[in-house]
Amino acid sequence: MEDRLARQLAFALEIDKEKSVFRQTHLSGHGRNENDAEHAWHMAIMAYLLREHANEDVDIARVMLMCLIHDVVEIDAGDTYAYDAEGLKTQAAREEAAKQRIFGLLPDDQAAELMALFDEFEAYETPESKFAHAMDNLQPLMLNTSNGGGDWAEHGVSAEQVYGRQRKTALGSQVIFDEVIDPAIKEHVELGNIKP
Amino acid sequence: MEDRLARQLAFALEIDKEKSVFRQTHLSGHGRNENDAEHAWHMAIMAYLLREHANEDVDIARVMLMCLIHDVVEIDAGDTYAYDAEGLKTQAAREEAAKQRIFGLLPDDQAAELMALFDEFEAYETPESKFAHAMDNLQPLMLNTSNGGGDWAEHGVSAEQVYGRQRKTALGSQVIFDEVIDPAIKEHVELGNIKP
Repeated sequence: MEDRLARQLAFALEIDKEKSVFRQTHLSGHGRNENDAEHAWHMAIMAYLLREHANEDVDIARVMLMCLIHDVVEIDAGDTYAYDAEGLKTQAAREEAAKQRIFGLLPDDQAAELMALFDEFEAYETPESKFAHAMDNLQPLMLNTSNGGGDWAEHGVSAEQVYGRQRKTALGSQVIFDEVIDPAIKEHVELGNIKP
Repeated sequence: MEDRLARQLAFALEIDKEKSVFRQTHLSGHGRNENDAEHAWHMAIMAYLLREHANEDVDIARVMLMCLIHDVVEIDAGDTYAYDAEGLKTQAAREEAAKQRIFGLLPDDQAAELMALFDEFEAYETPESKFAHAMDNLQPLMLNTSNGGGDWAEHGVSAEQVYGRQRKTALGSQVIFDEVIDPAIKEHVELGNIKP
């Protein structure tokens, strides 16, 4: 087999491990914890279907690919819960090392391309990155609210923490923030699942 | 919330169930059975990275979306193992009913679009469909060979059956068939995992 194809397949096999990185979010129907690969799949489809609600025009193929690969680094770095203050301090360094090792399995041109796409996602600056982040925030909120808000209650999360993350959802989609996110947070403060 | 957004979110929540449809393939590292959402995620990334090996130019965004949604029908219809002769007889009817119900949750224009994309995948005629099918065949073979071919051995599958499915991989990518699929089948006939 030619070396280029072998490197592509080595990366493809390596990322299988993302299916064993579990998140704090639970599947709908009060299911088990979700893993990163499932989360990424869900986000990519939601991005495609909800793209009309993005604040700015987005290259949707780029958004979808960003969604699909944004958590690959967690194979080495682990999942850092959005409201884990200690873990968040070391997250960037852990993820940078993982990025180099895992995308580095690919042929050089594709490694550079996916590293740049990952960096673009992290930088939160382009319309594509902002909309991908909106999906990264909406997808677990959708599952959590479908289960009565138990993930927030379990972690004792406050409205300030949830708004700290979710206000940025409005950078990608004001409509989704106004119509879905903000009413859900208010409802779950009311229900006592999110601390006021 | 406006009705259109509500319908989009109803579909997004419904497809969460795809994470609970399990396949015969096992994750690498002799892991648990894989589910449909993980399989679709994996295929979409592989399609993007391997697109240079497609026999014909493909619209890669279309291939990726096709990969992501091709198993949604299995939420109702269940997974039909590639070598389950009885199940294959009723598969089309079960999947057609599922297609109408599940994609029918979406706004009409998006329902029609995704149903057409699913039909295109099933018809195996366009370059995008052929390449998506090549990924649908390559991805489980990659996992299975990484585990020593146990999935074939477990089901007592014959070379004729494996070639019956995998020869069509060459319709999407002759390179992948010649360089990866065919040598793997020969090796696992030799090893006794696939019956001659």
